[in-house]
Amino acid sequence: MKEAPKKIDHIGIAVKSIEDHLPFYENVLGLTLLKTEVVESQKVKVAFIEIGSSKLELLEPLADTSPIASFIEKKGEGIHHIALGVKDIEDRLQEIREDGIETLSEKPYKGAGGADVAFLHPRSTGRVLYEFCEKK
Amino acid sequence: MKEAPKKIDHIGIAVKSIEDHLPFYENVLGLTLLKTEVVESQKVKVAFIEIGSSKLELLEPLADTSPIASFIEKKGEGIHHIALGVKDIEDRLQEIREDGIETLSEKPYKGAGGADVAFLHPRSTGRVLYEFCEKK
Repeated sequence: MKEAPKKIDHIGIAVKSIEDHLPFYENVLGLTLLKTEVVESQKVKVAFIEIGSSKLELLEPLADTSPIASFIEKKGEGIHHIALGVKDIEDRLQEIREDGIETLSEKPYKGAGGADVAFLHPRSTGRVLYEFCEKK
Repeated sequence: MKEAPKKIDHIGIAVKSIEDHLPFYENVLGLTLLKTEVVESQKVKVAFIEIGSSKLELLEPLADTSPIASFIEKKGEGIHHIALGVKDIEDRLQEIREDGIETLSEKPYKGAGGADVAFLHPRSTGRVLYEFCEKK
């Protein structure tokens, strides 16, 4: 029996400007901005918006070298990834690799909010970019 | 104060074949298939996979005239929409239209699982296809 992901931790959404999109989430939908932070390793600014036990994560590129800048360049703004909340992320990554799923990094690394994160390769998942995300 | 959406009800994922993708969700991730159903109005087969208080909703087109068939033709398989769980969907739709947000239908209609649903126009939302979804 697998230790399945417990929830949708967040959905990552690529935007050109957080400032331009926040009014939709805060004023139109009435959701709450939890915080913003800069993730230097990914060259992104991140805004976390609370919704139930999950979050919407707006991702704004801070440099042309950001993976989010490349995504927007190729596909435009929109949904970027789905993050699944897991426990013992290193064990989970090993398990799925044994099942033939490719991952974008061998080890988890620090993502937004101090979480340990790793991405699954979309060609293993029906073209959905899934993230495993563990919060200690 | 707006009556904000309470949770991510589900994430819709366009697939060519539910059968081909279920093993990833059930066997690799260890998630549980709740049920499958056919939504005749949209010409889709839908598989609901439980994750925490949300669901992943695999959408397989049953005819070339299905909106999901057009989506896959244009963009390939992948994430199709984010459904936000709301109360009093007609009031919510009226509110957001007063805020200048376009909707894809004037009234809600019956979607998968017997829910009342309506979509927001992606050009009003930063190219994310949001659904409002009310379960009675």
